[in-house]
Amino acid sequence: MNSKTFQDNYPDDLSQCYGCGRCNPHGLQIKSYWEGDEAVCRYTPEPYHTAIPGYVYGGLIASLIDCHSTGTASAAASRTDASAEGADPVVRFLTASLHVNYLSPTPISETLEIRAVIKEIKGRKVVVSSRLIAAGKVCATGEVVAVQVPEHLMPR
Amino acid sequence: MNSKTFQDNYPDDLSQCYGCGRCNPHGLQIKSYWEGDEAVCRYTPEPYHTAIPGYVYGGLIASLIDCHSTGTASAAASRTDASAEGADPVVRFLTASLHVNYLSPTPISETLEIRAVIKEIKGRKVVVSSRLIAAGKVCATGEVVAVQVPEHLMPR
Repeated sequence: MNSKTFQDNYPDDLSQCYGCGRCNPHGLQIKSYWEGDEAVCRYTPEPYHTAIPGYVYGGLIASLIDCHSTGTASAAASRTDASAEGADPVVRFLTASLHVNYLSPTPISETLEIRAVIKEIKGRKVVVSSRLIAAGKVCATGEVVAVQVPEHLMPR
Repeated sequence: MNSKTFQDNYPDDLSQCYGCGRCNPHGLQIKSYWEGDEAVCRYTPEPYHTAIPGYVYGGLIASLIDCHSTGTASAAASRTDASAEGADPVVRFLTASLHVNYLSPTPISETLEIRAVIKEIKGRKVVVSSRLIAAGKVCATGEVVAVQVPEHLMPR
């Protein structure tokens, strides 16, 4: 386990994201790190992150899967660079597509764990599969196609 | 156009949703209504709903598509009941699956418009297709499979 999270390695001008930017005080501040070949994120929902009473809002689940997956894509892309350490992403990824299957209502009183694996890396594209676990049960699965942020969208 | 939105028709105990519950003061307060056969939602992101600087966070886009689609499913299910008026949903839907394609970065300074149509209604399941438009351009598309909230999950 790396003590430094993927998101700690983003430069300040790419750390404004509402989901995972450490420089966004209004945001969710999602954090991700490697545990072996799986990338892990843990998040405890706020009481107001509700859907129907007692269960987590699906949009929050989508947000967690989204940012954890693009973070994992960044970390994996840097891992393929022999000169880079494990949790040292040098490039940022955007989401090209997001697919979430909600298998079971997710209890809001639990800390959620999202575990992601790399399914494919091809050029600037990385496909990340994930599952969201609450109280030992897989409540949702996700698949994100992430693409490296193009040069013309980078902050100057 | 109905002056009453789909979400205005949800009973109070099903109006806690972080995305669209009128009784959740922390939430996004998403509102939807019919314009002919299309259901429309308009939402202006807050400045902190950012991804990379200047563009809307993908998790917010997923949240808007999610709640607008389940609301549209509710309204459509009630429309098929000949005794019901257009925007008068009597049942609430959960998201079984959510798919978002991000076609183009979405500018954060614009009011976003999400336009949804019913693709299929089959028993307790409704499939909703949508597109998200900013400054006249389709920046994302969505498909949601919504299922009627089962009795055992309803508040008592």
